[in-house]
Amino acid sequence: MPISRIAIGTREEATHPGALKAALAEFISTLIFVFAGQGSGMAFSKLTSGGATTPSGLVAAAVAHGFALFVAVSVGANISGGHVNPAVTFGAFIGGNITLLRGILYWIAQLLGSIVACLLLRFCTGGLATGTFGLTGVGVWNAIVLEIVMTFGLVYTVYATAVDPKKGSLGTIAPIAIGFIVGANILVGGAFDGASMNPAIAFGPALVSWHWTHHWVYWVGPLIGGGLAGLIYELIFISHTHEQLPTTDY
Amino acid sequence: MPISRIAIGTREEATHPGALKAALAEFISTLIFVFAGQGSGMAFSKLTSGGATTPSGLVAAAVAHGFALFVAVSVGANISGGHVNPAVTFGAFIGGNITLLRGILYWIAQLLGSIVACLLLRFCTGGLATGTFGLTGVGVWNAIVLEIVMTFGLVYTVYATAVDPKKGSLGTIAPIAIGFIVGANILVGGAFDGASMNPAIAFGPALVSWHWTHHWVYWVGPLIGGGLAGLIYELIFISHTHEQLPTTDY
Amino acid sequence: MPISRIAIGTREEATHPGALKAALAEFISTLIFVFAGQGSGMAFSKLTSGGATTPSGLVAAAVAHGFALFVAVSVGANISGGHVNPAVTFGAFIGGNITLLRGILYWIAQLLGSIVACLLLRFCTGGLATGTFGLTGVGVWNAIVLEIVMTFGLVYTVYATAVDPKKGSLGTIAPIAIGFIVGANILVGGAFDGASMNPAIAFGPALVSWHWTHHWVYWVGPLIGGGLAGLIYELIFISHTHEQLPTTDY
Amino acid sequence: MPISRIAIGTREEATHPGALKAALAEFISTLIFVFAGQGSGMAFSKLTSGGATTPSGLVAAAVAHGFALFVAVSVGANISGGHVNPAVTFGAFIGGNITLLRGILYWIAQLLGSIVACLLLRFCTGGLATGTFGLTGVGVWNAIVLEIVMTFGLVYTVYATAVDPKKGSLGTIAPIAIGFIVGANILVGGAFDGASMNPAIAFGPALVSWHWTHHWVYWVGPLIGGGLAGLIYELIFISHTHEQLPTTDY
Repeated sequence: MPISRIAIGTREEATHPGALKAALAEFISTLIFVFAGQGSGMAFSKLTSGGATTPSGLVAAAVAHGFALFVAVSVGANISGGHVNPAVTFGAFIGGNITLLRGILYWIAQLLGSIVACLLLRFCTGGLATGTFGLTGVGVWNAIVLEIVMTFGLVYTVYATAVDPKKGSLGTIAPIAIGFIVGANILVGGAFDGASMNPAIAFGPALVSWHWTHHWVYWVGPLIGGGLAGLIYELIFISHTHEQLPTTDY
Repeated sequence: MPISRIAIGTREEATHPGALKAALAEFISTLIFVFAGQGSGMAFSKLTSGGATTPSGLVAAAVAHGFALFVAVSVGANISGGHVNPAVTFGAFIGGNITLLRGILYWIAQLLGSIVACLLLRFCTGGLATGTFGLTGVGVWNAIVLEIVMTFGLVYTVYATAVDPKKGSLGTIAPIAIGFIVGANILVGGAFDGASMNPAIAFGPALVSWHWTHHWVYWVGPLIGGGLAGLIYELIFISHTHEQLPTTDY
Repeated sequence: MPISRIAIGTREEATHPGALKAALAEFISTLIFVFAGQGSGMAFSKLTSGGATTPSGLVAAAVAHGFALFVAVSVGANISGGHVNPAVTFGAFIGGNITLLRGILYWIAQLLGSIVACLLLRFCTGGLATGTFGLTGVGVWNAIVLEIVMTFGLVYTVYATAVDPKKGSLGTIAPIAIGFIVGANILVGGAFDGASMNPAIAFGPALVSWHWTHHWVYWVGPLIGGGLAGLIYELIFISHTHEQLPTTDY
Repeated sequence: MPISRIAIGTREEATHPGALKAALAEFISTLIFVFAGQGSGMAFSKLTSGGATTPSGLVAAAVAHGFALFVAVSVGANISGGHVNPAVTFGAFIGGNITLLRGILYWIAQLLGSIVACLLLRFCTGGLATGTFGLTGVGVWNAIVLEIVMTFGLVYTVYATAVDPKKGSLGTIAPIAIGFIVGANILVGGAFDGASMNPAIAFGPALVSWHWTHHWVYWVGPLIGGGLAGLIYELIFISHTHEQLPTTDY
């Protein structure tokens, strides 16, 4: 049972040099990711004089987020695990793969990374406003389910390619898969609710622009989706591995 | 002879926990793939107020399908083999790499995954219609040959990079190759017949929108193309491997 | 000296089952590549009613060729080496890595693959004309140098990532690198001479459309560029490896 | 302490065949990279008759630079380390991973590669002007900080995926990560200061077009960002590795 692996951790753990280094790695990874992702939206806004999203703009956002998340996961992978996302950390906690204390440390680092990225973007662009996440033609419940489905896909990908002990050579391309599922989902959700799948990338812009309308949607949806993915993957595909016959189909 | 490896399977096999888990993995993988692929078309439709496909729209569709299929194959690879496509399962059956019963189980799971993805998309988008596959300026025979050629390329890629025992380090990047050949082919076929290469991604939208015109084309073409690829690859490139001198050219 | 490795081959070699299978693999790989690459141009032409190339169209061409070449090289890698290009085969011959007879067999297979892809495209699109390579605002000498530089980069990439015995883990991602350098170069040369880098992809459309103006440019340029890359890489980076101290910088 | 690893080198080292081959590899890699990157901008300029940057144009630039840098790093990786960038070489020097003499040799090779690429582009395009880097709506300080942040991300990626002894299987995909972080950052910085992150790709066009306004920005920013990344990664994540408990989270 994965439950037995959930632990609250000790204060020693949270202040341990390894934990602090992991938190610093999460901070830097999230900064790199949000700088490229959020920044690409600001560049689009500048080039189009604040025009509405177009298919080209969605492709640009998908490429920026997909490529940058791939990199952010890669550079953090061997230090912190490369979560870069409170929903991934929550999914790891639900599946029993990180302690509560370390998870909280990661959350703080991720939110700080996002905030610093937005402040840097504001300076680098000569004072342009960061974009914020919001609903376009859909209701709150639609957006929550959208975030649940997309984040489920993301955290399921994290589990299948990076956590599962049976992952094998998939581990080599795990960061690409994790980045690209976000890129693909942005081409869907970007037109409806901004396609966050990650509370941190919504939090930084919301704080810097002080725009909180529907902000809770980008916490509730991703945390439910990520938690579900962690629970289902652990319970069904990891926990009972020893009882399962090997799959010999390719 | 690959024929000898084709088996009908037993009822034990189909209800075996491993088979059910594999079917669940196919269901989830197909859901993730169709959600991104079909959803990106709905997003394009929304952003352009239902406008006709443009080169930008085709790039968005290619990236969404290519990236998402790469991920869907990856996350299923070690559980079900990551077919995500009845034509791939059929090609595996023809080549003797999956039993009939397990293949039927996969088909059901893939079709269900596609249906659920379409229903979720309809809800998440606030009730927008899913797009359906159809012919644009070409006849039925042209579309069938188009689907045959494109699906042949896809299933040939599956065999060369994931099934062939000589695959070596190609196995590591197999899911990327499988996703990207679909992305590339969409940039061709997307302008003529929607570029399905996969009966499941045509079936979900057809059922949810109850639009069945030419739907059979998206079964006949991919199954012929996938079956041909499985047969040719097995007979020529795998079966007689032991009689063949090693290829020492790089 | 690589020269010593160049051999003319024997008739046994060319009719050997391994050689014929390799030729078949080259045929299928080139067919897959040209179908996607040439076909994406025909799709662009249809969507824009024959409009001039735009930056979006160039991106579509780059993605289609880059993704499809990656796949075409992958699926052929373990059977024929995945040349998919007479200039690559010529570079391999110049560097002493393939015999003359086998090289000629590859050339025939590649040209046939391209022709069949163009005939299939003509049928699948309901009779649309294939695009042909030509010069846009540049002279013959400019185009030849352009093809030389771009094909040098391509064949140098083939040598560094797939042929060099020191390639190490680069071999795993070699097909991606080979595909992506062509994708990148199309974003340059596509606007000036169509960015062939490959006589086969120019030959098929020229034959099917019977359009031979400047066709020789797409043979001379790529063969010089590919030959140069093979010669330089072999002489400088491979041949004297045993005299060289290991490079300990990463 | 990494400081102890910094060495000035000897004249023997710089004229050593291995060092000269490494310099040649840097020259060729930078030529390939700048030819595709700078050339894609010239193609955009031609297709749009010198029009302003659009989101599509930014995507084309990101793809061209991202794909070509991935390849340029790959082809140089086992010969010179695949720096392709004076800021990466500087970051490697600051972290104690290359000697001063060899670093200078690399700088010269990189600058020459960029110059030759620009001269070739001018010829191949029938005499079109190369684009130059400049500020669009931002001040000098904004651009410097922008270059610092983006280059920090790039060199941090180089360290985490290619230099860090703990990199493991990340080393296989390191060149892709290095190329893609540049692709992602171009989607941000391309709209504000051209997104150089690399003094060499700014130097070649500046020299060939003799346009030096704000050129120093593209040296100061990247060198500070690259140096910072080298220093921080070495001091925090590499040097004290032996004192650190293993990170057992994935």
